[in-house]
Amino acid sequence: MRIARVIGTTISTIKDEKVRGSKLLILRQTDETGEIIGKPYVAVDLVDAGVDDLVLTGHGSSARQTYQTKDCPVDAVVMAVIDHLEVDGEVVFLKS
Amino acid sequence: MRIARVIGTTISTIKDEKVRGSKLLILRQTDETGEIIGKPYVAVDLVDAGVDDLVLTGHGSSARQTYQTKDCPVDAVVMAVIDHLEVDGEVVFLKS
Amino acid sequence: MRIARVIGTTISTIKDEKVRGSKLLILRQTDETGEIIGKPYVAVDLVDAGVDDLVLTGHGSSARQTYQTKDCPVDAVVMAVIDHLEVDGEVVFLKS
Amino acid sequence: MRIARVIGTTISTIKDEKVRGSKLLILRQTDETGEIIGKPYVAVDLVDAGVDDLVLTGHGSSARQTYQTKDCPVDAVVMAVIDHLEVDGEVVFLKS
Amino acid sequence: MRIARVIGTTISTIKDEKVRGSKLLILRQTDETGEIIGKPYVAVDLVDAGVDDLVLTGHGSSARQTYQTKDCPVDAVVMAVIDHLEVDGEVVFLKS
Repeated sequence: MRIARVIGTTISTIKDEKVRGSKLLILRQTDETGEIIGKPYVAVDLVDAGVDDLVLTGHGSSARQTYQTKDCPVDAVVMAVIDHLEVDGEVVFLKS
Repeated sequence: MRIARVIGTTISTIKDEKVRGSKLLILRQTDETGEIIGKPYVAVDLVDAGVDDLVLTGHGSSARQTYQTKDCPVDAVVMAVIDHLEVDGEVVFLKS
Repeated sequence: MRIARVIGTTISTIKDEKVRGSKLLILRQTDETGEIIGKPYVAVDLVDAGVDDLVLTGHGSSARQTYQTKDCPVDAVVMAVIDHLEVDGEVVFLKS
Repeated sequence: MRIARVIGTTISTIKDEKVRGSKLLILRQTDETGEIIGKPYVAVDLVDAGVDDLVLTGHGSSARQTYQTKDCPVDAVVMAVIDHLEVDGEVVFLKS
Repeated sequence: MRIARVIGTTISTIKDEKVRGSKLLILRQTDETGEIIGKPYVAVDLVDAGVDDLVLTGHGSSARQTYQTKDCPVDAVVMAVIDHLEVDGEVVFLKS
């Protein structure tokens, strides 16, 4: 899973009915301290994440292993909101 | 899903009958404002997108989760036309 | 799918019987005009493509959605020969 | 599989019950001597690995081929702790 | 499939019984002449390859389409030993 920050939202014209009812978030991958290091991408929100939250995103067929995304043309989901990250015994990120 | 811009179309000699009847678009990944940042790739159009549209593309096995692409050797679909993108509470892209 | 140019062929000692009977091509990804931009990779030929042809390759589990590659340890297929590519209303590649 | 070093742990608010009970590790890909070369990512621990261990991680749908991760929205697992790595007949890494 | 060179072996503590009995090789992707261009990764050997062999590796779910890797948390296999590579009508690699 990638560590990523929610940076925004998208409104789109979607054919698939199930996806149409989902919240689509714009994210960018971060390092283990929350610093942005990757390109923007879009994922279906499963955990009611908000803009600026640090989250974990699951990719590929794994993104369809939920009731909300089963059989949908979806390749990324926000599957967790990160509470804290600990590296080498030190807390490097703590949700405010 | 990737944010991408439709830059063109392709006509190809395709063995698979179902794919042969599909519209294949050339796309390039963009950032959250629509600026191009990625290499060109090709996806099956599911939403009747046009050249210059900003769209979402789904990749991998997720691209086969539609009636039009089921059991086809297809690894990318245009699954949404983007109407607007909002980053940090500000609209950064609006379909004209 | 990637736009790619066939640059060569490989002869290999392969355990899987079905793959052993297939033609394996060496390819490199190109941009939308046919200029090479990517690393070489190998794919099973489904469309009788020849060296120097511009083709589309499908990747991942999608590469197994054909009679010839079903249940094979194959992750890329040449699924189309490109006849022409059109970008912004202009033909940028035409098969000779 | 990637060779990777465990650099930390994460505590997250996760919807999926099975994933919630799993230990999630933060990792970075390394080269064959254990030198870090990649971005951080998160994987489910299957082998009770500890911080600083060199491990192998499996990705994509392969990450769901275990009792602990079956049908979960999980795309990476720590599937082995590396004991030693040998390159060109020389031991380049030995677990301490 | 990637063209890759076998550079070494790994001994690891693995939970999955089937994987435990497999030979795991360390590889690096090469170009079409056998020059190394990629990061090291690990794959299950299906073809009794040796160090320094040039091989083809299959990735993702395709790596599980063999008796030896079915239902295993494995995402890469060595599926062929390359005998020769031909580019633009010229032999650029020949197994010695």
